[in-house]
Amino acid sequence: MTQDQSNAMWGGRFAAGPDAIMEAINASISFDKRLAAQDIAGSRAHAAMLAATGILSDTDSRAIREGLLTVLSEIEGGRFAFSTALEDIHMNVEARLKEVIGEPAGRLHTARSRNDQVATDFRLWVRDQIDAAVAGLRALIAALLAQAEAGADWVMPGFTHLQTAQPVTWGHHMMAYVEMFARDMGRFADARVRMNECPLGAAALAGTSFPIDRHMTAEALGFDRPMANSLDAVSDRDFALEFLGAASICAMHLSRFAEELVIWSSAQFRFVTLSDRFSTGSSIMPQKKNPDAAELIRAKIGRIMGANVALMMVMKGLPLAYSKDMQEDKEQVFDAADNLMLALAAMEGMVRDMTANRPALAAAAASGFSTATDLADWLVRALGLPFREAHHVTGTLVALAERKGCDLPDLTLADMRSVHPGIRDEVFGVLGVHNSVASRVSYGGTAPDQVRAQVARWKERLG
Amino acid sequence: MTQDQSNAMWGGRFAAGPDAIMEAINASISFDKRLAAQDIAGSRAHAAMLAATGILSDTDSRAIREGLLTVLSEIEGGRFAFSTALEDIHMNVEARLKEVIGEPAGRLHTARSRNDQVATDFRLWVRDQIDAAVAGLRALIAALLAQAEAGADWVMPGFTHLQTAQPVTWGHHMMAYVEMFARDMGRFADARVRMNECPLGAAALAGTSFPIDRHMTAEALGFDRPMANSLDAVSDRDFALEFLGAASICAMHLSRFAEELVIWSSAQFRFVTLSDRFSTGSSIMPQKKNPDAAELIRAKIGRIMGANVALMMVMKGLPLAYSKDMQEDKEQVFDAADNLMLALAAMEGMVRDMTANRPALAAAAASGFSTATDLADWLVRALGLPFREAHHVTGTLVALAERKGCDLPDLTLADMRSVHPGIRDEVFGVLGVHNSVASRVSYGGTAPDQVRAQVARWKERLG
Amino acid sequence: MTQDQSNAMWGGRFAAGPDAIMEAINASISFDKRLAAQDIAGSRAHAAMLAATGILSDTDSRAIREGLLTVLSEIEGGRFAFSTALEDIHMNVEARLKEVIGEPAGRLHTARSRNDQVATDFRLWVRDQIDAAVAGLRALIAALLAQAEAGADWVMPGFTHLQTAQPVTWGHHMMAYVEMFARDMGRFADARVRMNECPLGAAALAGTSFPIDRHMTAEALGFDRPMANSLDAVSDRDFALEFLGAASICAMHLSRFAEELVIWSSAQFRFVTLSDRFSTGSSIMPQKKNPDAAELIRAKIGRIMGANVALMMVMKGLPLAYSKDMQEDKEQVFDAADNLMLALAAMEGMVRDMTANRPALAAAAASGFSTATDLADWLVRALGLPFREAHHVTGTLVALAERKGCDLPDLTLADMRSVHPGIRDEVFGVLGVHNSVASRVSYGGTAPDQVRAQVARWKERLG
Amino acid sequence: MTQDQSNAMWGGRFAAGPDAIMEAINASISFDKRLAAQDIAGSRAHAAMLAATGILSDTDSRAIREGLLTVLSEIEGGRFAFSTALEDIHMNVEARLKEVIGEPAGRLHTARSRNDQVATDFRLWVRDQIDAAVAGLRALIAALLAQAEAGADWVMPGFTHLQTAQPVTWGHHMMAYVEMFARDMGRFADARVRMNECPLGAAALAGTSFPIDRHMTAEALGFDRPMANSLDAVSDRDFALEFLGAASICAMHLSRFAEELVIWSSAQFRFVTLSDRFSTGSSIMPQKKNPDAAELIRAKIGRIMGANVALMMVMKGLPLAYSKDMQEDKEQVFDAADNLMLALAAMEGMVRDMTANRPALAAAAASGFSTATDLADWLVRALGLPFREAHHVTGTLVALAERKGCDLPDLTLADMRSVHPGIRDEVFGVLGVHNSVASRVSYGGTAPDQVRAQVARWKERLG
Repeated sequence: MTQDQSNAMWGGRFAAGPDAIMEAINASISFDKRLAAQDIAGSRAHAAMLAATGILSDTDSRAIREGLLTVLSEIEGGRFAFSTALEDIHMNVEARLKEVIGEPAGRLHTARSRNDQVATDFRLWVRDQIDAAVAGLRALIAALLAQAEAGADWVMPGFTHLQTAQPVTWGHHMMAYVEMFARDMGRFADARVRMNECPLGAAALAGTSFPIDRHMTAEALGFDRPMANSLDAVSDRDFALEFLGAASICAMHLSRFAEELVIWSSAQFRFVTLSDRFSTGSSIMPQKKNPDAAELIRAKIGRIMGANVALMMVMKGLPLAYSKDMQEDKEQVFDAADNLMLALAAMEGMVRDMTANRPALAAAAASGFSTATDLADWLVRALGLPFREAHHVTGTLVALAERKGCDLPDLTLADMRSVHPGIRDEVFGVLGVHNSVASRVSYGGTAPDQVRAQVARWKERLG
Repeated sequence: MTQDQSNAMWGGRFAAGPDAIMEAINASISFDKRLAAQDIAGSRAHAAMLAATGILSDTDSRAIREGLLTVLSEIEGGRFAFSTALEDIHMNVEARLKEVIGEPAGRLHTARSRNDQVATDFRLWVRDQIDAAVAGLRALIAALLAQAEAGADWVMPGFTHLQTAQPVTWGHHMMAYVEMFARDMGRFADARVRMNECPLGAAALAGTSFPIDRHMTAEALGFDRPMANSLDAVSDRDFALEFLGAASICAMHLSRFAEELVIWSSAQFRFVTLSDRFSTGSSIMPQKKNPDAAELIRAKIGRIMGANVALMMVMKGLPLAYSKDMQEDKEQVFDAADNLMLALAAMEGMVRDMTANRPALAAAAASGFSTATDLADWLVRALGLPFREAHHVTGTLVALAERKGCDLPDLTLADMRSVHPGIRDEVFGVLGVHNSVASRVSYGGTAPDQVRAQVARWKERLG
Repeated sequence: MTQDQSNAMWGGRFAAGPDAIMEAINASISFDKRLAAQDIAGSRAHAAMLAATGILSDTDSRAIREGLLTVLSEIEGGRFAFSTALEDIHMNVEARLKEVIGEPAGRLHTARSRNDQVATDFRLWVRDQIDAAVAGLRALIAALLAQAEAGADWVMPGFTHLQTAQPVTWGHHMMAYVEMFARDMGRFADARVRMNECPLGAAALAGTSFPIDRHMTAEALGFDRPMANSLDAVSDRDFALEFLGAASICAMHLSRFAEELVIWSSAQFRFVTLSDRFSTGSSIMPQKKNPDAAELIRAKIGRIMGANVALMMVMKGLPLAYSKDMQEDKEQVFDAADNLMLALAAMEGMVRDMTANRPALAAAAASGFSTATDLADWLVRALGLPFREAHHVTGTLVALAERKGCDLPDLTLADMRSVHPGIRDEVFGVLGVHNSVASRVSYGGTAPDQVRAQVARWKERLG
Repeated sequence: MTQDQSNAMWGGRFAAGPDAIMEAINASISFDKRLAAQDIAGSRAHAAMLAATGILSDTDSRAIREGLLTVLSEIEGGRFAFSTALEDIHMNVEARLKEVIGEPAGRLHTARSRNDQVATDFRLWVRDQIDAAVAGLRALIAALLAQAEAGADWVMPGFTHLQTAQPVTWGHHMMAYVEMFARDMGRFADARVRMNECPLGAAALAGTSFPIDRHMTAEALGFDRPMANSLDAVSDRDFALEFLGAASICAMHLSRFAEELVIWSSAQFRFVTLSDRFSTGSSIMPQKKNPDAAELIRAKIGRIMGANVALMMVMKGLPLAYSKDMQEDKEQVFDAADNLMLALAAMEGMVRDMTANRPALAAAAASGFSTATDLADWLVRALGLPFREAHHVTGTLVALAERKGCDLPDLTLADMRSVHPGIRDEVFGVLGVHNSVASRVSYGGTAPDQVRAQVARWKERLG
């Protein structure tokens, strides 16, 4: 049998071969070759099971499994010639296996189909990416914890609407991202549990009449159990969509932090200095030091959420079971996963390398009437004003300070009393930035002790 | 203080009031009034805690909590006049509370901000929607189980590429959706666990210097714990995005089933008859009976995934902490949740009401060489052919039958032996549709007993 | 005939009425009542044509057209009771028309269907929105031109990567947005031309055997011509998608400008002061002045692009001709259009009201080695260095200035010559910010004269 | 100067080089090498202009232009070694140019920046894709016209809700897609006009002080004019988004037709036979002939609209001028363009090859009470019934026929008169399928003559 015949497995049915356009739109080998290791692991588990259940002879099974290792080493060694005519990774591997071991290769496809085979391969691949994402998040969180611990009491402005709101601590700000990225870890972990079921043995769509043992292959491949419905096993891709959903949310968190780093690196803010490693220059403006890595990380949400939209749109309205539309699943997930891992690694590096500009942070924290809320709270606590009234008094004092061109601590007691006669000298104690942050001891608040407690909690949780 | 002054809480700061455009773009009361019950529950928990920690007198606290119940009953009774000038649900409720109970109303906002207030309200609302989605899915699964149980052995064509592939059972097809919708339930359940932390007490962004007890309010509102970082508490909306992600995947599953129902209802398929309740007619074509409900369900993925994109795009690149952009979160989630619940209810109703057309299903199952795989498998099992060779022999037999204008069981033994001389009379046993499905006893396969076992498993799991 | 019977036009076909869920998912009157004016205009044109072609008597036609005006005035006057049982705007209007004029109302639906009727209504509505968008863009451009004219020579830093790159002028920056918004106008105008064809007369999908005059109705409704294929007329919604596409790009431009306004309003930048009209305060932090309008405008791209995704997903894979899925088109477009118009109006108001902080802009423009490129260009022009070498020399000088803690103009000639001995005293002439911007006279460059020329060009173009 | 130094143009500024992660996230050469031809064309035009304006010597300019041709031939011949360390296509080309021609290469970058260079390259590339899309659409339309002409009078069922509605003609159905794809052509053409302005000479963002001639380079590169604002020129990507928008709508149209082909190829419909060239078989089910090309075309809207979302999300909220985020523009557009062209070519091939199954179409057209509307219209025309009453009478007749298990033409005149006594024998004339389609002569209707007129009109328009 010639190479041309061996690959066109369904060729007996057709008078004419697909032409160039069809080959271009139909073949998936250019991208699904990334599934080679998973494909071979799946085939080896299948062959072992076929022997254990007596469907295949031990000799054939052993030949297949050893032959597959040979093929794998050829692929990993870059010595494998992928063929577009052979369409996909499954046919490429099987055709080469036939060259290596001869006739028994033709027995490997017993009791399975490309439908359950590709579903298995892809799940294995996505599972690995989930593990990689969790590892990347763990490393990023470690970098954030280090920053938070070092700067648990460094004051900086807390913003709302990018306007100075209240002083917070550097450590507190870092820990906000620890919370977000930890939830991202949780999303990936949940997705892993849900997806960790094995499609192998669903065959084309209906299961098989061969006496296979699906629990055996599931276990061999590290799955918790076989999938419970063969139609579902070959036709759903919700596990890939759930991965993309978790990745999109994670990319959203990354985009927010990246935006802050870009703003903080501006000449106007100067809150942080990024390392040269994660900056670049300009081809025309020699003075520039650009936060390119932060900008690229900020942008990654585009392609990751775009992949999410793409696959959702592909799956919309597809009748059961497998449709060829589903071949579009892999490139989207490959690209999203690659870029998420890159963004996580780059962000981890940037966080490790970056230096907070403490004087600039402190100066900014003290400006902009940042302790106005402390003043209002003092009016409630010390003078018993209802909060709404205290808020109004404070607003009037801020307006007064603005007119005088000074900040709140620079007002005189007389100024203060002109607005509310009950104000006493002790009020100035709450107007200092360090006092302000130290006072916010409510659980999860910005006080340095609260920050340190959260750092300790996370260190213990993450081991 | 006039009404105009009382609502413009930040009015002391400004010379001019916002004009009509600003009010139109800024006010949220037209939609966030849906959070009234959650807002009042949050405020009552807050007031109780303020008293328990001594920040507020018991008298004031009691007045506030009872006054809030009065406001709630006014809202629920449709007797509340919402004011756009008062911007949002929080200010509307508080302003009315002040009219009802007077001065103590001004003390309610102590140690909190609209930032943590709205985050709490919205979480409570989303949590309710998760519970509703789970309930809707449970009802839909029950309807599917009833169909599956009744039709565990009704044969129908299993399709791939919308081409007849192999016979399956009606019950097996229904159970495929049970698996999908059960994973959807799992996604919602995981989201609920992750989101069930209380933002209240984060105040504007930094926590507060008042000696509040965040664990107390968290518990009172049914949360597992307070959120551990106040900046994170007021500035992330990943819980809403996770809800939209789970809803999008669920809507994708619904769209697939709906597509099948539309196709199955066509004159060409006639696989299923939908009830009159879930069909409509035409204004110009009197004979039409249209599967409108199925079409509308199929379409719902659009707006739900659209909402997912919308909120993701809003959140992209927002610096911490709260930005006004985040006000755009609610309408998207409201609309997505409403439409998901509607789609689940309509699908449940359609499934309960629909009637499988057994003769049409059986006839279709038997046509189109649907047992070709059974023939190939028999060649492997009975004659020891490698699967790839068995596949080729079968393809040749199919081509022969096509030329003769008959189906596989109509070929003579002589016909068969002209292609492969080893074929024996017993081959005809595997070419019957009922034998075919009965033979697929691999775990999760389409055999009636497998289907019944899965129905039983799910009935037990869901109670 | 009772009201209940009259509305259920297709009721003769069904034993059971749709239940509550079906009504909730099926009825569109809650939103398509916004098409009332378009629906009545379409019906009046249709009735006039039916008379002109002899299909309807003049008496009936006149009664219908006058009756429709009565119905319209009831709707516009808020005196119309919309009925959900009557499903949609078409049936609501027709049922009321029957009450007003009796039997002739039943003749209006001759030679048309709800399919071509709704397609016509919706096109008319979208066409109005295009006109509104163009008007809104025109007003916004006028506001930008006023800012540009006033500040044609005000210097400010031009940024790349949010790092100071080169000095530019305020007017130049404003004019960049004029170009973008003018292209947006062009996109809407092109969409209008393409969509301005009339579906009326396509009937259900196949045209009609009545001798109608489609050119007459097209002209009466301001369309350029009737649509040339009746199947296409009732089943495509690409005109709505093109509107959403243009709106999304426009919202993207708005989001960029809004982001700049948010950043420029920060205490760290202070480049611009927004008016009180377009800012708000905080419920807890009395000193805050938040750029809420800018933030909300920035967010609008979310829901507009979300609507684009939603409708694209709805339309994906729908077979011809009309499917009920398409009922989901309107709410998406309504919401996107409303929010685009609001965002354009708010942006126009903000731009009109905002005040550039010239001293802050000038100071920022002069810092950060912003004229390094001028220095490099001088080295090329005056000393004949290849640009790449000039770039390297400049980079070394910037590094030297950084080490000395000064800016480029503060280096001594000796400093300069230590890096490149050929540098002459005249170099200091190019290091000044005003000289820098004045020198950029290439077409479209930032030089004040170039800016003024562009302002003049646009004023003339827009009349 | 070593290779390492020469490429790191901005290296003088940094102590440390970017590490591996940074290189991985930062370098674009892996994809922007596709812009090589455009980059070199742009550089050649720039060099010619620099000489014409006296900025560069004729000798240097000629050396540069010829050297660039050498580089181009190396790239096109596959003899060029792309370097990731050199980041992007611009630096790769320039570095090689320096090796080829020496020192003058360093003068090429005078009066330009990578910012305007890449904007120019990318516009040239997108412009080519627009031309390719228009050509692909033109070919597809030609294939549709051929089908329409051949089958102008072949009857088939027209569907709404996938239910038989009224008979239409095959040609009419094909022509519906001609209208859609022609509008797609119009969208691409409009986008081309709008985008055809040249960014070159905008330099980094502010223009340049060199006396360049931007009109000369614009003309040399086939642009209509230079862009009028240098900030806009380097920072907007709306041209790419408009391309993606037009591509998405086109992909939506393709998805609808592809869905129809999938459904029409099913055993239940058998409306069409796709050629073997555009079908494939199954690895396990030998009888299958799958419409893979149609399914893949149906799926392409996913990645194309996904790219649209991705780039829109990237651009959202980016301050002017260039940010590194924008480097994410190219891969999205490359992938969308590649897949659109592939889908158009595959669809054209499928349409050319496909065979309508006329008997199946005719049989389906005649079933399902498809001429009920004709009956209703006859009642209006012949008996003067108001349409609404005619509709009701027809509905009752359909119900009667359903009960009798026959179709409308099979009812007796007595049956008919039992519902409405005025019905006369001539009614049977309108109940035939061919009479039905022939009667729909309204402009754009399904009558064969109307279809032929539209075919003729399009043939003339497209030449």
